[in-house]
Amino acid sequence: MPATPHPFPTHSAVVADLRDRWNILTTARRVAAFTKLDREEAEDLFFDLSSTDQAKLLVSLPAGERRSWMRLLAPDDAADLVQEAPEVERDGLLGLLDDPTRKEVNGLLAYAEDAAGGLMNPRYARVRPEMSVDEAIAYIRKQARENLERIHNVYAVDAEQKLQGEISFRRLFASDPAQTVREVMRTELVTVREHTDQEEVSRLFARHALVELPVVDAEGRIQGVVTVDDIVDVVREADTEDIQKMGGSEALDAPYLEIGFLHMVKKRAGWLTILFLGEMLTATAMGKFEGEIAKAVVLALFVPLIISSGGNSGSQATTLVIRALALGEVKLRDWWRVLVRELGSGLMLGTVLGLIGLIRILVWQRAFHTYGEHYVKIAFTVSLSLLGIVLWGTISGSMLPFILRRAGFDPASASAPFVATLVDVTGLIIYFTVASVILKGTLL
Amino acid sequence: MPATPHPFPTHSAVVADLRDRWNILTTARRVAAFTKLDREEAEDLFFDLSSTDQAKLLVSLPAGERRSWMRLLAPDDAADLVQEAPEVERDGLLGLLDDPTRKEVNGLLAYAEDAAGGLMNPRYARVRPEMSVDEAIAYIRKQARENLERIHNVYAVDAEQKLQGEISFRRLFASDPAQTVREVMRTELVTVREHTDQEEVSRLFARHALVELPVVDAEGRIQGVVTVDDIVDVVREADTEDIQKMGGSEALDAPYLEIGFLHMVKKRAGWLTILFLGEMLTATAMGKFEGEIAKAVVLALFVPLIISSGGNSGSQATTLVIRALALGEVKLRDWWRVLVRELGSGLMLGTVLGLIGLIRILVWQRAFHTYGEHYVKIAFTVSLSLLGIVLWGTISGSMLPFILRRAGFDPASASAPFVATLVDVTGLIIYFTVASVILKGTLL
Repeated sequence: MPATPHPFPTHSAVVADLRDRWNILTTARRVAAFTKLDREEAEDLFFDLSSTDQAKLLVSLPAGERRSWMRLLAPDDAADLVQEAPEVERDGLLGLLDDPTRKEVNGLLAYAEDAAGGLMNPRYARVRPEMSVDEAIAYIRKQARENLERIHNVYAVDAEQKLQGEISFRRLFASDPAQTVREVMRTELVTVREHTDQEEVSRLFARHALVELPVVDAEGRIQGVVTVDDIVDVVREADTEDIQKMGGSEALDAPYLEIGFLHMVKKRAGWLTILFLGEMLTATAMGKFEGEIAKAVVLALFVPLIISSGGNSGSQATTLVIRALALGEVKLRDWWRVLVRELGSGLMLGTVLGLIGLIRILVWQRAFHTYGEHYVKIAFTVSLSLLGIVLWGTISGSMLPFILRRAGFDPASASAPFVATLVDVTGLIIYFTVASVILKGTLL
Repeated sequence: MPATPHPFPTHSAVVADLRDRWNILTTARRVAAFTKLDREEAEDLFFDLSSTDQAKLLVSLPAGERRSWMRLLAPDDAADLVQEAPEVERDGLLGLLDDPTRKEVNGLLAYAEDAAGGLMNPRYARVRPEMSVDEAIAYIRKQARENLERIHNVYAVDAEQKLQGEISFRRLFASDPAQTVREVMRTELVTVREHTDQEEVSRLFARHALVELPVVDAEGRIQGVVTVDDIVDVVREADTEDIQKMGGSEALDAPYLEIGFLHMVKKRAGWLTILFLGEMLTATAMGKFEGEIAKAVVLALFVPLIISSGGNSGSQATTLVIRALALGEVKLRDWWRVLVRELGSGLMLGTVLGLIGLIRILVWQRAFHTYGEHYVKIAFTVSLSLLGIVLWGTISGSMLPFILRRAGFDPASASAPFVATLVDVTGLIIYFTVASVILKGTLL
């Protein structure tokens, strides 16, 4: 990547270089390099690391040095780090925190990592609805000194911590100082519960263009806030999982170069074996047509071309539909509209490939006399099969994600290889059926 | 998706329902429904729409109603809307803005949509380094009343607007009121230039866990700020493009149900045709082995199984590597480490499939006597070919993204179908070569 000219120094060159090489260093080398940095550089690096890497580094540091690093972290980041640390180290790490923070971190650890409760920060700016704007600002200033990480929205809560309304700090700050918070706050709020799944949370952010989202319990008491910067990671992680599944393997759940070799092979071997077992049906299908192939070997020549065209058109369709479902552009109930579109696409794409195939065979015949006296019939067999197979690939590729979601599975499992395998067997049947109709009495 | 019980009303049911159906309504129906809403509901809906939909709606509204909607938008959102509007409407829309905003919007329109300058908001909280903390806060309060959208970081600039330092508003707010801004601000800053590509910008956000990033010109004058909520859209958009390419079509650049039918077919037909032309080489390759197939028709039965196994293992490898490159987990210079890993994976995965294939043939032979007297040799031919083809698929699938990036192309073009096509032809050559060695003197 070409470096952008920066009028400002960012990290020191040492930190930048170390950060770049971090994932290929052994733990011992990481510790050695880290302890050589001055404090400011070390902090820069530490905050840049993922929770997993922070945890690995921290448990490798001498016991006496861990405390100051743990205490640098906000409660949600500390909770992430503890979650990533080995089981036996967790209590020790929690013990390094001061009492109120440990309580907060323990609260967060009670939630699943991928739920709103596991994403949220338990520290937020709170005011009472009956305060004046000026009182509220002074009260937030006090909170900012004590424990706030950032101030975006300000939440008005009653004595029982029940959420009454919210206002952006910017708007509060710009309001008439003598008005009450109640007069300037919004009361139509988007909120989530602690156990809402993080992907649902990220859809709400996208849907309502949010920057911050309060998390409330069943009684409407505010528990914390999820901020949009956490959502960037959720989106990236969800997309990575989808992409890996769409490529026909299990999601790796760790960076490619960091995941253990055998672990990675296991995650790939599972699907590859399932697909292979499915693909074995092609040998069975081909076996059924062994007589036809023996009579007309020329038919075998086009088998790879025909089945791969079905696979490719199926890959396209399934990928487009999986992504549209993931983005919420298409809903389950839209399956019918997608079917109509894909019927049209399949017909057009199949016609294009069928025509190219027809021309290819006719040209080759004229040039090389490859296909014998019945070349016209062979050309039409291939051409019509292509139309049928592309149409079938497109339709099954586009409908499979709907079927999977309807059945409660992840639509992204309708991977390109899965669809290709599915289409291969039926593709062969279509091809040899078309052949037996067209070539009956001549080659067959 | 099951609705989360909400203790709060969010949008009115009318707005929520309308938002859900928006993309399937005709323009006339959108306008009719929109104008029936009361002002608050209409604002809720308007802000929830994408820039494209906002533009479509706005140009369909009566001329007299457009102004109040345009003026609701922040400059960066207004710029996005104008960019999405038809060419002939743009000047009219710009004319609806007040003079200072129009100047800002015109400035933003000068940048490419996908550059930092096109993402940034030209309004940010600015102070002078020599102000006291209390003066700075009062000064920001004045800016908040006038034109700020949000306050996250505060930027200290000199008389020429050159960026001197930054401080989070939270920290400024919590600082000793008598200190100067210079004493509390950070001076080691991450910044970008106006023309930095948005994907590079999003990598900087991820790399440094940023919430806001100042954009500066060549002289270090601050031009605006990019905020993390804009980055969520950049990430989503980039992932969508990658996914669509990885599925073997061009990126659609519009939601599936909204893109014109012929436009979509065109985007899919291009790659499908290229892949088809490539796949035609399989017919040529098969033609070269026509003699062998005629002598041993049984060989043809395993062709689909063999080539699809190469395609599937190639899909896996290419997908994992493309994603790792996109996330920056793997860099161009890591190709050698990836090659070593994939050599190992390919050998292990190939051995697994080869063994399953071997067992399958031996079991079928015992059960159905399908494969004739030379079934052991056939079993070894298939098994060894599988090992070779899976290894080859894995290696070419993992290296292709590196080759594409090195050559200046998008690694995501190494789609699953592309790799499958590449592997099919070589897979056939491997298979028939292995067959001719093992079966020489018996079947061949």
